[in-house]
Amino acid sequence: MNYYNSKSIAKTTIDAIRPKVEEALKNEGFGVLTEIDIKATMKKKLDKDYLPYIILGACNPNYADKVLSIEPNIGTMLPCNVILRELKSGDVEISIIDPSAAMGTIGNPELEIHAKEVQVKLMKVLNSI
Amino acid sequence: MNYYNSKSIAKTTIDAIRPKVEEALKNEGFGVLTEIDIKATMKKKLDKDYLPYIILGACNPNYADKVLSIEPNIGTMLPCNVILRELKSGDVEISIIDPSAAMGTIGNPELEIHAKEVQVKLMKVLNSI
Repeated sequence: MNYYNSKSIAKTTIDAIRPKVEEALKNEGFGVLTEIDIKATMKKKLDKDYLPYIILGACNPNYADKVLSIEPNIGTMLPCNVILRELKSGDVEISIIDPSAAMGTIGNPELEIHAKEVQVKLMKVLNSI
Repeated sequence: MNYYNSKSIAKTTIDAIRPKVEEALKNEGFGVLTEIDIKATMKKKLDKDYLPYIILGACNPNYADKVLSIEPNIGTMLPCNVILRELKSGDVEISIIDPSAAMGTIGNPELEIHAKEVQVKLMKVLNSI
């Protein structure tokens, strides 16, 4: 199953592309609540060298409120992750979780309606970058 | 599909139980990398009152390294979320994502081996609280 959607931006860096990603998320109602620096974490914990790779946790509060009211434990699947990673080629790949795929496995039709609406918004984000 | 495992602790608070949860995670090699305060976020963004509810993002660097080497975009599903939420009854429910359920939908058998090992560790965490 395809659990994310992605696109690559040629010859750039995470630092250069990140403001555009955050702006595109904001335009669809998503704030960035969390950030994980994989490269820094792997260096610190395992002394292993990764290319630059960050995980942004994006949340649309209106939709979070809707899904939490239906499935109180859906917090185990929030927020929606957006990853930015630099490739050996010099490109940056942006990948966004497909919440309708992830939440579709739960088998709650009411939840899936909202997950699909969030997925439409996240595709707009990806297409606008 | 059951996408999480949980237990309730009677008559306690998130503040009281959280150190035990973090200690149990640490004993299985997980650090807490992110935190979302749902109650505070919902109050701030929507002026809505939630009971105390936090989402902790737990990561075992050794396993993160293994799954990232197999599926570079698996960062869209990391870290493993542990939620603590206070119920009307006065109990606290602790729910932990089942990564073998979530990652099982991807259809990558090599990934699933590690996801199942992580799931065993997270069940040990839950059982030790």
